[in-house]
Amino acid sequence: MNLEMNALRARYLEGSLTPVAMLEELEAELAAEEAGQSHRLWIRRLTLAEMRAYAQALEGRDIAGLPLYGIPFAIKDNIDLAGVPTTAACPAYAYTPQRHATVVQRLIDAGAIPVGKANLDQFATGLVGVRSPHGACRNSFDPDYVSGGSSSGSAVAVALGLASFSLGTDTAGSGRVPAAFNNLVGVKPTLGTLSSTGMVPACRTLDTISIFALTADNAAQALAVAQAEDESDPYSRRAEPHGRDFGAAAHFRFGVPREDQLQFFGSADGLSLYRMAVRRLQALGGEPVEFDFAPFLDTARLLYEGPWVAERYEAIRDFFEAQPEALHPVTRDILGNSRGISAADAFGAMYRLKALQRVAARVWQDIDCFITPTAGRPYRIDEVEADPIRLNSNLGYYTNFMNLLDLAAISVPAGFHDSGLPFGVTLVAPAFQDAPLLRLAARLHAAQDLPLGATGMAMPAPGPMPAFASGQVRVAVCGAHLSGLPLNRQLTERGARLVAEVESAPDYKLYALPGGPPHRPGMVRVGPDAGGAAIAMEVWEMPASAFGSFVAGIPAPLGIGTVTLADGSAVQGFVCEAQAVKGARDITGFGGWRAYLAAV
Amino acid sequence: MNLEMNALRARYLEGSLTPVAMLEELEAELAAEEAGQSHRLWIRRLTLAEMRAYAQALEGRDIAGLPLYGIPFAIKDNIDLAGVPTTAACPAYAYTPQRHATVVQRLIDAGAIPVGKANLDQFATGLVGVRSPHGACRNSFDPDYVSGGSSSGSAVAVALGLASFSLGTDTAGSGRVPAAFNNLVGVKPTLGTLSSTGMVPACRTLDTISIFALTADNAAQALAVAQAEDESDPYSRRAEPHGRDFGAAAHFRFGVPREDQLQFFGSADGLSLYRMAVRRLQALGGEPVEFDFAPFLDTARLLYEGPWVAERYEAIRDFFEAQPEALHPVTRDILGNSRGISAADAFGAMYRLKALQRVAARVWQDIDCFITPTAGRPYRIDEVEADPIRLNSNLGYYTNFMNLLDLAAISVPAGFHDSGLPFGVTLVAPAFQDAPLLRLAARLHAAQDLPLGATGMAMPAPGPMPAFASGQVRVAVCGAHLSGLPLNRQLTERGARLVAEVESAPDYKLYALPGGPPHRPGMVRVGPDAGGAAIAMEVWEMPASAFGSFVAGIPAPLGIGTVTLADGSAVQGFVCEAQAVKGARDITGFGGWRAYLAAV
Repeated sequence: MNLEMNALRARYLEGSLTPVAMLEELEAELAAEEAGQSHRLWIRRLTLAEMRAYAQALEGRDIAGLPLYGIPFAIKDNIDLAGVPTTAACPAYAYTPQRHATVVQRLIDAGAIPVGKANLDQFATGLVGVRSPHGACRNSFDPDYVSGGSSSGSAVAVALGLASFSLGTDTAGSGRVPAAFNNLVGVKPTLGTLSSTGMVPACRTLDTISIFALTADNAAQALAVAQAEDESDPYSRRAEPHGRDFGAAAHFRFGVPREDQLQFFGSADGLSLYRMAVRRLQALGGEPVEFDFAPFLDTARLLYEGPWVAERYEAIRDFFEAQPEALHPVTRDILGNSRGISAADAFGAMYRLKALQRVAARVWQDIDCFITPTAGRPYRIDEVEADPIRLNSNLGYYTNFMNLLDLAAISVPAGFHDSGLPFGVTLVAPAFQDAPLLRLAARLHAAQDLPLGATGMAMPAPGPMPAFASGQVRVAVCGAHLSGLPLNRQLTERGARLVAEVESAPDYKLYALPGGPPHRPGMVRVGPDAGGAAIAMEVWEMPASAFGSFVAGIPAPLGIGTVTLADGSAVQGFVCEAQAVKGARDITGFGGWRAYLAAV
Repeated sequence: MNLEMNALRARYLEGSLTPVAMLEELEAELAAEEAGQSHRLWIRRLTLAEMRAYAQALEGRDIAGLPLYGIPFAIKDNIDLAGVPTTAACPAYAYTPQRHATVVQRLIDAGAIPVGKANLDQFATGLVGVRSPHGACRNSFDPDYVSGGSSSGSAVAVALGLASFSLGTDTAGSGRVPAAFNNLVGVKPTLGTLSSTGMVPACRTLDTISIFALTADNAAQALAVAQAEDESDPYSRRAEPHGRDFGAAAHFRFGVPREDQLQFFGSADGLSLYRMAVRRLQALGGEPVEFDFAPFLDTARLLYEGPWVAERYEAIRDFFEAQPEALHPVTRDILGNSRGISAADAFGAMYRLKALQRVAARVWQDIDCFITPTAGRPYRIDEVEADPIRLNSNLGYYTNFMNLLDLAAISVPAGFHDSGLPFGVTLVAPAFQDAPLLRLAARLHAAQDLPLGATGMAMPAPGPMPAFASGQVRVAVCGAHLSGLPLNRQLTERGARLVAEVESAPDYKLYALPGGPPHRPGMVRVGPDAGGAAIAMEVWEMPASAFGSFVAGIPAPLGIGTVTLADGSAVQGFVCEAQAVKGARDITGFGGWRAYLAAV
C-alpha cells in the first residue's frame, strides 16, 4: 500500500479509502514483514484493535481540518504512547505511561494513527541500530547491513512502507544516520522546538525528537503539527525564524567543506556521490563556497571525548546503579565509564565548546547553509558487532557536532552506492532555519530520480509545504537606502539582503524633498490618470526582529506603508506624507532617484 | 577631595583643576590612608609617576569628547592592568599582563585614570573580604567590620573617596555585598555585556565585571563606557534591551518577597530598614506586589551546594595542583572539595537550574523589577574568621541566585543600622534591563538624605544619565488599534503597553476608509490652515524587536510614519496615503475615531 502522505490523503479525500480500511491492509503487510525475515524493527507494534481505536476516533471528523487525518506513524520506543510500555530497548527499565508524549499527542490530535513502538539502540546510545536486546535492526535495502541508529526501527518502518512517517530522537545523529542508510528524509529540528516531555532523555541538553519521512514535504507536514512551545519542558524554546529563506531562493550560497576534511572510511564511491549532490545544489541556483570544516570536526570530537556522555548516565543513574546487568554490555561500558568524568572536566569542555561555537558561527557570514555527507559509508552488522565503538564513532563524523552547535539539519537521499545501499547528504543551517532547509531539501530530493525509501515507488510530484513563519520582512526602497547610497548601511547592518530590482506600479510621483544631507526623495501614490509613473525601486529582505528599529529610525515626512509594484504585487515600502511634497521638485520624469542623482 | 564624577568633571571643564593636579592631591590622601590604620584595600596601588603617565596622555585632549576625562578608578586585582601584576590575591599565582583587560582599556580610552589594584577575597571566592593574604579588608565605616567581598578593596576605595568609581567582579554577589556594606551603588550588569577578557575567571559561566560608584548616575557613566560586545570573549553578548523603561515611569510594579522568606540573621533593624526602602519605592510610584521568593532561594542553594564551585577549581586547576600550599586555607578547602563532584552531578544540577529558571521567570509577568535586602546583616571580621563558611554563606542569601537566573541587579544604599553601619537593598530585573534599573536606582537613592559612601559628603543633585538604548518603540494609534477596539490585540500580544492618551497637532484630517471589518480610519496631515484638527490618539510602547512584525502586518493605504502631537513632539504613528482618502468620509469633526464610532 502506498503510505506516502499526499497519496493517502488524496484517497481519503476522494472517499476511496477510510482509515479503518487502511489499517486492515496495513496489518496484513505488518504481519507479512514479521512472518518473513523480520527486520526486527518493532519492540511492540500495536494490534489491529489498538490501531483501530485511533481510526474510529476520526470517524465523522472533517478531513480538511485534520492535517494528518488517518496517517499511520511509528514511534521510537523511547517516546511515550499512553498505555503501551516505553522500554528504551531495555526491558527491565520499562514503564507504562499514562499520557502520550506532548509531540505524540499533537500528532494524534491532528489525525495521525500510531502503528507501534520501534526498535532502537538501547537508551538511544549508538548510531548503528545493533545495540538492542531485540536484535540488530536490519537495513531495509540489505538485511546484512545495519539500519543505522539509534532510531533504527523508526527509519526502517517508513522505508518499508509500514508507516507514513515516524518519530525518532536525535542527540548525536540518531535521526540522520538511519535516514541516510534507508533512503529517507530525516529532519533533526532546531533544539527545543519539539517538546521532549514524554521522551526518555539521553543528553537532556542535546536531545530532540526527530522525524523520518519518504519526502521533505511529508516530513514538513508532520513537523508543522509537532512543533510548539511547551511549558512542561524546560528546554522548550519558541521557534524564532530569522535569516533568509534560501530554501526557495533562485540563488543561494552553500558551504562545502575542504575536500581533505571529508572522510569516507574506505568507501570507494562516497566522494563521487557527495560531489554529485553538490552539483545538484549548484544546478538549483546554489553557489558553492569552500569552508574550513575544522571547528565542526573539533566540536564533534568534543562530544565523543567530552563530558556529555555523563548526561546519559545521569538520565538513568538510579536504574543503572540498581541493575547494571540489565544493560546492553556496550551501553553499560559507555555509560559506566562516564562516572570518572569530573564536574571540573565538564566545565572545561563547556568552555572549549563556547569558544568553538563562536568560531563555527562565523561560517554563516558567507553562506546560507552547508552540505556534507550524512555518513561516510554504511557497515555490515557483523562488522559493527566485531568493532562496536570505533565504527559507531565513524558514523558520527558528520553528525556529532550538530546539537552542540545548535544547528538545524536535514538528511536527504542522494543516490546509491554501487553496492545498492543508499547514500545521504545532510543540509545544515543555523537554529530556527528548519523551514528554508525543508524547502531546499525538497528541491534537492525532487531533482533526483530516486525511489521512495525501500518501497520501489517512484518519487511523486512535490506536495505542498505547510506554512512556516519566515521571520522575514520585505521592504521596497526608492531613495537614499538604494544600494551604494548613503543610508544603505541601515539595511545591511540589520542583515538585509537585496532581493530584486523592481519598478513600482505606474501611479506614483517622486519628489526631491527639501533638506539633507542625506538628500531624500518622497514617493507619493497619486492614483490612475494623475500623471504618475513607474519608479525604480529595490526590494530588500531583513529579519522582522530588525525591521522595527529600521522603521523607528525613519524621519518625517517618510514612513513605511504598502507599495504596489509593476507586477501588481504589494510590498512594504517607503511612503511619504502628501502635504510634505507641496512645493518640492517633482522628479517623477527621471523614473527613479538614482537617475535623478545622475542627472543633477 | 571630592571625587564624585560630576563634581570632578565640572572642575575640569571650568579649568579649576587638571588631572595632574588632581592626582597630586589624591596621592597625598592615599598616603595618609596608608599611614593611618590602613583599611588594607590595596594590593598594589600605582605610584604618582605611574598615575601621572595616564593623566599626561590626556593633555591637549578635548574634555567634551572624553566622558571619563581625568576620572580616577580602582581595579580589583583579578582584572588586568598592563604592566602591573595581576595576583587575584595569591602572590604565587601572579602574572604581569602585557595588555589591559578589554574593560580597563575602554575606560582608559575614555579618559579614566587607574589608581591601583585592589584587595579581594582570593580568587574572588568569598563575600566577606577577609580571605586575603594581604589581610582582611576593613569596612569604611567601622574597621572592626568586614568590607564585604570578594571585591573588598574596590568598594572601600570608592567609599573612602580614593577613587571615583571602581571595577569589581560579581559571580555570586561580590559586586553587591561590598556596595551594601560601604554605602555605595553596586552595579552587577547583565552577564556578557561587559567583556571578561583580561579577568581571572572564577566561574566562567557566571562571571561579570561589576562597577562601584557613589551614585547611580556615576555608575551609569562608567557602565556606558565599559559595555561592548567583545569577539575575544566567548561569553560576550550583545546588549539587547527589551521590556519597559520602568525606571523612568511614573507608575511601575515591583515585587516584594513574602516576609517569611526574608532573613536578617539576627539583625534587629534590618527588616525595618528594608520596609522603609519598600515604602520609598511606593512613594516613587511603585506598586508593591508580593511574590513567592522560593524559586530564587532554591536557585541560590543550588549555587552553594551544586557543581559551579568546580568552575573555580577548573579556572586555576594546574596552579592548584602544582602549589596547593600557596592558597588561602579556606579557599583551598572550598576549591579542593569540588574535585569530588562528577560530571553527572553537574548535569543533574543544570537540569534543576533549567527548571528553576522557568519557574522564576514567571514572576516577570506581574512585575517590572523586585527589591530585596542586599545582605541580611553585616558581620565583624573576628566573627567571620571564627566561622568562615557559614557566615559567608549567609551573606549570599539574596545574591547567589542572580547570575544563575541571568538577572541584572543593582545594590542601592538604603540607610544605616543603629550600629552606624550601612544597609543596602538590591533592585533586580531581567537580563538587559540594566538601564531602567539604573534610572530607578538613581531615583531611590536620591529620595533619601544619605551621605556619599563614607566620605561624609552630602548627596548632590542627580547628574545626567548617559543614553542607553531602550529597545522600545513608541507608536501613536488613532483607529482600530485603540484600547478595546478590534485590532488592539496586535499591540498587547507583542507586549505593548499604553503610555499616554494624547492629541495630535491640530493639522490632521481623519477619514473613515471604505472596507472592513475591521473598520479603519485614515489620518492624513494637511498642513496649517487647511481645515485640520487635533485627533485623539493613544501612544503605545513595545519592544523594537516586536515592532517590525507589527508594521509588516499593516495593510494599504495605512503605514507607519511620524505623527506630530499637540505638544509639538514627534512619535511613530499611523499615517495614510492621501490618494486613498479621496471620496472617503471626512470625520475630522468628531475629533477622533472613538467619538465617531460612538456617534454612528
